[in-house]
Amino acid sequence: MKITTNKVTFDEPLYCESGRILQPFEVVYETYGELNEDRSNVIIITHALTGSHHAAGVYEGESKAGWWDGFIGDGKAIDTTKYFVICMNNIGSCFGSTSPLSPHPLDGKPYRFRFPVLTISDIVKAQIRVMKYLEINSVYAVVGGSLGGMQALCYAVEYPKFAKHIIMIASTAYTRPWAIAYNKVTTEAIRNDPDFKDGYYDPADIKENGLKGLAVGRMAGHISFLSPQSMDRKFGRRYVGQDGLYELFGRFEVERYMEYNGYNFPHKFDPLSYLYIVKTMNIFNASRGSDTLEQSLSTIKSNLHLISFSGDLLFRPVEMEEIYETMKNIGKSDIVTYKMIESDYGHDAFLVEIDKFDDYVKDILQENI
Amino acid sequence: MKITTNKVTFDEPLYCESGRILQPFEVVYETYGELNEDRSNVIIITHALTGSHHAAGVYEGESKAGWWDGFIGDGKAIDTTKYFVICMNNIGSCFGSTSPLSPHPLDGKPYRFRFPVLTISDIVKAQIRVMKYLEINSVYAVVGGSLGGMQALCYAVEYPKFAKHIIMIASTAYTRPWAIAYNKVTTEAIRNDPDFKDGYYDPADIKENGLKGLAVGRMAGHISFLSPQSMDRKFGRRYVGQDGLYELFGRFEVERYMEYNGYNFPHKFDPLSYLYIVKTMNIFNASRGSDTLEQSLSTIKSNLHLISFSGDLLFRPVEMEEIYETMKNIGKSDIVTYKMIESDYGHDAFLVEIDKFDDYVKDILQENI
Repeated sequence: MKITTNKVTFDEPLYCESGRILQPFEVVYETYGELNEDRSNVIIITHALTGSHHAAGVYEGESKAGWWDGFIGDGKAIDTTKYFVICMNNIGSCFGSTSPLSPHPLDGKPYRFRFPVLTISDIVKAQIRVMKYLEINSVYAVVGGSLGGMQALCYAVEYPKFAKHIIMIASTAYTRPWAIAYNKVTTEAIRNDPDFKDGYYDPADIKENGLKGLAVGRMAGHISFLSPQSMDRKFGRRYVGQDGLYELFGRFEVERYMEYNGYNFPHKFDPLSYLYIVKTMNIFNASRGSDTLEQSLSTIKSNLHLISFSGDLLFRPVEMEEIYETMKNIGKSDIVTYKMIESDYGHDAFLVEIDKFDDYVKDILQENI
Repeated sequence: MKITTNKVTFDEPLYCESGRILQPFEVVYETYGELNEDRSNVIIITHALTGSHHAAGVYEGESKAGWWDGFIGDGKAIDTTKYFVICMNNIGSCFGSTSPLSPHPLDGKPYRFRFPVLTISDIVKAQIRVMKYLEINSVYAVVGGSLGGMQALCYAVEYPKFAKHIIMIASTAYTRPWAIAYNKVTTEAIRNDPDFKDGYYDPADIKENGLKGLAVGRMAGHISFLSPQSMDRKFGRRYVGQDGLYELFGRFEVERYMEYNGYNFPHKFDPLSYLYIVKTMNIFNASRGSDTLEQSLSTIKSNLHLISFSGDLLFRPVEMEEIYETMKNIGKSDIVTYKMIESDYGHDAFLVEIDKFDDYVKDILQENI
């Protein structure tokens, strides 16, 4: 599989939904496979909250593969021998695209809280600019899970002729309060941490020493990614260094898991980016600007494929079913499909239970569904 | 309804499961109704994590009723015209019973982290001492929800002849990792707050100014008390001061709810107490000391009544069903009942949906079930 990583800088402004502009702005992206001659084999992968453009493959000298490596590659569901796959780092994120730590054009100092509030529409708009730059005017498919699924739906609603297939996984048409509440724990934990310094922290310092508020918030996030059932199976009541003697004083394996995932996180993710991206999730509402979801989905011309997971508490099957039912109600039965995957894994299923839906996605892409 | 509030001090030691002792120790308790002549009309109410002995009625000059006021009172499910009801503040808690802020007998300074790790068994043992002091050798019923349900089960297992009826609501025989994970967010948030001062804070200062770590942790707790469905109904995507203009920048009602419940909490609850009580919950395991749950439940002679809520994610119906099935498997079908209440409210249902189970409890107490 051929991998390339690139960055593109746009000098023309990005007009954001908030009325603010980003100028200049940059997008980092990665590609897998090769573009065919008539440019008809493009698949866009949209990433989730803390994801990056590095969706597949292993960088030289590293051991960790891209976040959807089991899904994207030669012969895999997103088959890179057939498709030219591109994954762009969302603007606002901290993996190279323009973010709150990028220099403000006025003074060259980091934007920090001067960065505009972004929306999923803004993120997708920036991606469309990259596609134009690459002279790709339409794609075969857009595929994304969670926050990536919101982007996928946004493509369907706002760029009706752009994608032949939209595959939206473990996501929603508008974020419900359960998810907003988890995000609230994180944003408050960050905001309260004195080392956050109201956003005026030294990024190198955070990367080196961590940020406890972000760590604690991330722990709350990790609960939302799992489910009671998956935690039972994964951890039970096992203690670290299992020993009856320590029963009253020991540390549970689930506690170690929370510590590990919490405290490591600030070493690899930026707190300001976290705040801005969480905001895009909270305010995502596919029917914003329309009176109803019916009206907003009425523009859709792509084939919209919805995949949910039965154990997902963050973006529940019922949320995806609402999109499915709405599409049917507005006479679009012929371009919508819905599948709920049985899984008690929780929201993380879209990352860790790929084997439960990869054949289904393969069938969609081969147009057998 | 006659209400009394009392405190009793025990000079004889309380031997804790950890091998440590508490000496002296104090328990604050409240009673409702009147003890009959043959002392046969006693019902113990066991309280949950942040509850107190103030379970019912309204104190003079106050407007807020006790935490289970809809359930306990004249003519209510726990009928105080018939029963003498007693609710004791758990040791370790911060409403008057011996706690980590009580003076250590050696130096008169607060125990803080010198306080022994407590277990549910220790809490119940202290309650039994109060009952002996009141010359009550057996009770008609013990009724508790959540952490109070753990205490109720503990009465059943460890004091088989003490209660005729045990009513255990929205609880578990052993705490699962999902609950432990939420508790972890809270304990880490407290521990990381510089104002916690590793436990050497000034309690008056916390009460006055709050403790952000405890506030953030409590927000996580509040997620666990609800459910995705109950949040949808309670908050939807409504903004505070609903106004389309503020869509990108506004505050969601669910965010205000989290802030309100989070930031008010440290003004009324002590962080060291929180840490110690959360620990009793995490390490609660009714089969500790036995090889199996079967073995541990085999001592039970009380009528054990189990009530769960279909939408409870913290202590799920399946956890209560396990107790029910185990009781049947060991030949105790005649003394166990189980009812799942349909509710999508989440764990908090045991506090807020009393009208869904009060008649059932009335029937249990009238021995119609």
